[in-house]
Parts: sequence; C-alpha cells; structure tokens
Amino acid sequence: MAEEYAMDKGTGLIGFDLGATKMMAVLFDEDHRVVAREKARSKDGNGKTPVSRLVETIEQCLKDAEVEPKALKAVGIGVPGAVDRARGVVISAPNLGWENVEIEEKLEKALGVPVIVENDVNLGTYGEYRVGAARKFDHLLGIFPGTGVGGGLILDGRLYGGSTGMAGEIGHMILDRHGPLCGCGRYGCLEAYASRVAIAREAAAAALRGQAPALLEECGTDLTNIKSGAIARSIKSGDEAVEKIVRRAARMLGVAAANAVNLLSPEAVLLGGGLVEAMPALFSDEVEKAIRNQAFPALSRSVKVVVATLGDDAVATGAALFAEEMLRAKKEEKKS
Amino acid sequence: MAEEYAMDKGTGLIGFDLGATKMMAVLFDEDHRVVAREKARSKDGNGKTPVSRLVETIEQCLKDAEVEPKALKAVGIGVPGAVDRARGVVISAPNLGWENVEIEEKLEKALGVPVIVENDVNLGTYGEYRVGAARKFDHLLGIFPGTGVGGGLILDGRLYGGSTGMAGEIGHMILDRHGPLCGCGRYGCLEAYASRVAIAREAAAAALRGQAPALLEECGTDLTNIKSGAIARSIKSGDEAVEKIVRRAARMLGVAAANAVNLLSPEAVLLGGGLVEAMPALFSDEVEKAIRNQAFPALSRSVKVVVATLGDDAVATGAALFAEEMLRAKKEEKKS
Repeated sequence: MAEEYAMDKGTGLIGFDLGATKMMAVLFDEDHRVVAREKARSKDGNGKTPVSRLVETIEQCLKDAEVEPKALKAVGIGVPGAVDRARGVVISAPNLGWENVEIEEKLEKALGVPVIVENDVNLGTYGEYRVGAARKFDHLLGIFPGTGVGGGLILDGRLYGGSTGMAGEIGHMILDRHGPLCGCGRYGCLEAYASRVAIAREAAAAALRGQAPALLEECGTDLTNIKSGAIARSIKSGDEAVEKIVRRAARMLGVAAANAVNLLSPEAVLLGGGLVEAMPALFSDEVEKAIRNQAFPALSRSVKVVVATLGDDAVATGAALFAEEMLRAKKEEKKS
Repeated sequence: MAEEYAMDKGTGLIGFDLGATKMMAVLFDEDHRVVAREKARSKDGNGKTPVSRLVETIEQCLKDAEVEPKALKAVGIGVPGAVDRARGVVISAPNLGWENVEIEEKLEKALGVPVIVENDVNLGTYGEYRVGAARKFDHLLGIFPGTGVGGGLILDGRLYGGSTGMAGEIGHMILDRHGPLCGCGRYGCLEAYASRVAIAREAAAAALRGQAPALLEECGTDLTNIKSGAIARSIKSGDEAVEKIVRRAARMLGVAAANAVNLLSPEAVLLGGGLVEAMPALFSDEVEKAIRNQAFPALSRSVKVVVATLGDDAVATGAALFAEEMLRAKKEEKKS
C-alpha cells in the first residue's frame, strides 16, 4: 500500500510519541488518516536518547511510506516530562535523562519543517478531544494513570497550560498528608495511590501474604513484573484482594477527579492509559461514583466519565493534530 | 458633595454586594470612582430577602447621589451562592433562602438597565484582578476564607466558570477523607479546616480547656461570638493554642492552594476575606510556605501570594467592573 502513496507538498503530519522505553512516529495525511508507523526503542546501547534517534525514526517512517520530508506540514512531539511549549524546550524528562533540551530547534534544523513539543499526557488528552472519546467536550479533564498519574486540561476548547505551560499535574494533588510516600518526595499524592507502581506495591504485598494466588502464580512478588494486564487477569481469576486494591486506587482517582470537578466544572472526565485500558469498567464505575458522591451536585450532575479510545495512538494523534492547530493559529495571528 | 454630582446618561455603574446579613450598593462613575454607597440589612422583618429590597437599596443609593436611573450603564450583583450567569439566575443561595431566583430579569424590569449576576467570591477575585492586589495576574486563583471558603478563578485574563459557570469551589476540595465533618455533608474538605466556623470550633474547645485565656475572656466558648477580629486579638494577647489552630488552618489552605497550583499553574494566589484581613501575614506566610513545599518547583517557583486590598468594597467593585466588561463584550459580539 505505502509505495503507491503520493503526498502533496506541505500536507502531511508527523505525530511522535516519545516514551520512556519506546518511541513511535506516525505519519498522517491531510485528512488525518494514518499512512505509516515506525517504532523504535527510546534508548540506544548506552541508555541514552539523543535527538538524532528521533530524527532517524521519523526519517525511517517517511522512507517506509515513500514520502519526502518536504511533504510534511508539521511535526508534533509528545514528551514524558515538563515542557516549555512557548520556547520549544523540554525542561525536564527524568525517564529520558533530559534536562533543558532545545528539541524544537534541533528537530526543525534536522527536518526542515515546523516542530511543536508538548507534554505527552496533554497531547493524549488533546487527541481524544479532537478525534477520540472526548470529542466536543470543550471543558475536559484527562487523567492517565500509568507509571505515574498524568493529567491534561482542555478549557474553553483549548489545551490549557496555565502561566508556565505546565498545568495539569493532577497526579500530585495531595489527598492525605499522612498517606503513602510519593515519588515526588511528598506524602499522599494521588500518584502514591493510583499509579501502576502504587497498585503493584499493594498487590505484591497481597501476593506475598498468600491473598492473591493467581497474581503470585503469574508474576511472583516482584513489582517489576506486575503490569496492567497481569493485574486485570488476577482480578478475573478471582484474586479478591487485588480487586479491592485496584478499586481503592480508582476511588482515590475519583476523589481527585471530584476535587477538580469542584474547581473547574468540566463537562467530562476522560480516563486513559494502560491500567484503564486493562480494566475500563472498574475504573469508570469507581470514578463516576466518586464524582457523584464527592463533588457538588450542581457541578457533578452533568459530568460525563469517558474512557479513551485511541489506545497506543493517542499521543501521536494528539501531537499531529496539535502541531497542525498551532501552525494554523500562528498563521492567523500573523494575518491580523 | 453628592448633590453637586452630575452624571451623563448611560455612564454610571452600580456594584451590588448581596451578603447573607448585609447588602451594599455602590455607585461608580465612568472612571470607576465611588460616588455613593448605600447599606442595608439583607433580611426584612420576616427574615426574607425579596428582590424588591435590592431595588430599594439601589434606588436609595441613586437618590443620595442625586443621580437618575437613566444615568446608569449597567448593574452587577454579587450573590453568595451558585449562579447560572448565562441565564441570569441564582440557582441556590442557602443563606438567603433563595432557589432559582430569576434576578436578572426582575432587576432589569425594575431598573430599566442591563443587569449581570455572578457569585460574590468570583466578583471579589475579579475586582482584585482589575483594580486591587492582583492586577495583571492573568492566571489567578482567589481564595476567600470566611463563614465558608470561597474561590474564584481568572484564567487567561477572564473570569472562569467552566461548563456550568460555577467553577471555583476550592472550599470543597477534599484534603483528607478521614478529616472533620464539613457543612456539605462530606469529610475533610478545605472548608472543614480553614473556614471561620472551623477555626472557631477548635478555638472554643481550646478556650474551654483553659488553653486560650484571652479568647475565653473576650468571647467565652460560644462559637457565634468568635469572629475574625477576636481570633486575631487572642493571638496577639498570647493565646498560643489559638495561634497553632489558625496556623494549621492556614497550612491546610496552603495545601489546597498547592494542589490547585499543580493543576492550573497560576501566576498568583490571592487571599482575601475577614480572616485574612485580620491576620494577613500569618495567612500569606503559611500559604506561601505550603505552596513552596507541596507544589512542583517548576510550577510553584514563580507563584506570588498576594493579600486582597479592596476590603469591604471588593465584591461591589468587581460586580460593577464585571457588568461593564460583560456589556462591552456583548456589544462587540453583536458587531462581529
């Protein structure tokens, strides 16, 4: 298929999902259809992620589709960390070992097309808002529990970054100052209850106590082995302790969502990420219940809870669409 | 002075602060200078607040200033409750006994000028943003601890209401699900820690235990008597237990503010209301410390904590300026 594809100059979009372990470039045509995908490991033999690695992956993606770089209109990059979008700089992405990487400038020089960089969860939220589960919800809160718990905000139809561009950190909302230790060094953040790491921590202890036989058999008691799919399978196999653990995590996620509903009055709360994909009904039920019970009726009554549908493509899709939108906005600004 | 005042047709503004016990109409000229003020009790002999009472107070204010109603451009009303601004309806203001009051329509009919209604804390925040302590902070979170704890948001330079118009309810952010009972029926909301009622509850117990002699002497142990000024005086007189209680309340307010900073990345947090006015340094110190310690450095580093300066005029000022701004926006919309 790919070799028959002809793309007009300045019409294609690359959405790039730069994860801590894997990276993926997706090429879209002007109607936002996927033309090609290219995956690679994020880290080289030395455990580093040089920008050249992103360039190579994008070039390979274009090559596979037999598309010239000049066919591109824009490239959007989603990064797991704090991003200064206005300056095009990744302030900090600890899992990549990145600090103050001027990624926009470097990529623009290498590719010769406009590049936009944003936080990956923000772009996942934006992708679901534009073409996924959250279409038309102009006031939207996205929550993505994974290794951490990321958040994204659409306010008045626009991706919201606040004064620094880095808004949306719902994962570090403190829900109980006497709660468990969080990766950020504080206690009782949402992430310390509802991330995959937090759930794996509790589930491993249950397995060790003999209360989660199915999980014990599949994963042992090593946190590293306890992934979203295994957690879901353990619950299906009847590990009640694991179900209790995950429901509690989902409830805490719901409390954080309820707090955000009271503060922001969104139309919808979007849930996504590996854990939610593995157990969509459990998460959306608990979050919906928590919002109904914990937020103000006038604010919560009409809030929809939706589950992400773009899966692994969410960030890349959001990145491509957001890059296109930013380019359009910039052009309009110049006109006026 | 007032009788010499001449106001051109369609230039004046009325800002109205409808409180649970007192109401106040303030007449501003086109340069936003105060021309006259009229105060009244909010409730009539039957404990009711009919809309006619607002009309009378506004008319008296105009009469005192010898200004004709036709000199008015707009009237803005601040109400202690949930407001549907788009429809001009007070959904619920429990302290006034109001439910679904179509205040805009009623007042427009009575006064013959455009009327805008909004939540009082939103307008207090807007007033401080336009002409008070928070000038130029286009991303602003206002927190006003009082009988309850109200909040207001300025995002991208506009008063933010979210999808229902009722955003900003930071007072019901749950900080500890095992915390004290809140007036809303849930446990551990910010309001259950940091409202005047919550502080009075703790302080009265300290007084009863003999740990707050100055407070005991001035107020006894009746919560009703323990107002903001008395709390401040008790601390000044050396009631260490009361200082501990208020500092803890301020710290919890800081935790809620830090959570909101992580979510919204504002430029500034504005503190106002009776408690803060009585103890500005204590509150701003504790809130600033909490934000520095509890929020993400990248988001909190540049956040300013400011204390409201408009005092009793904040809501009326915000109401007048907001009504003018809404009118201007409406006219522009019609043009385009």
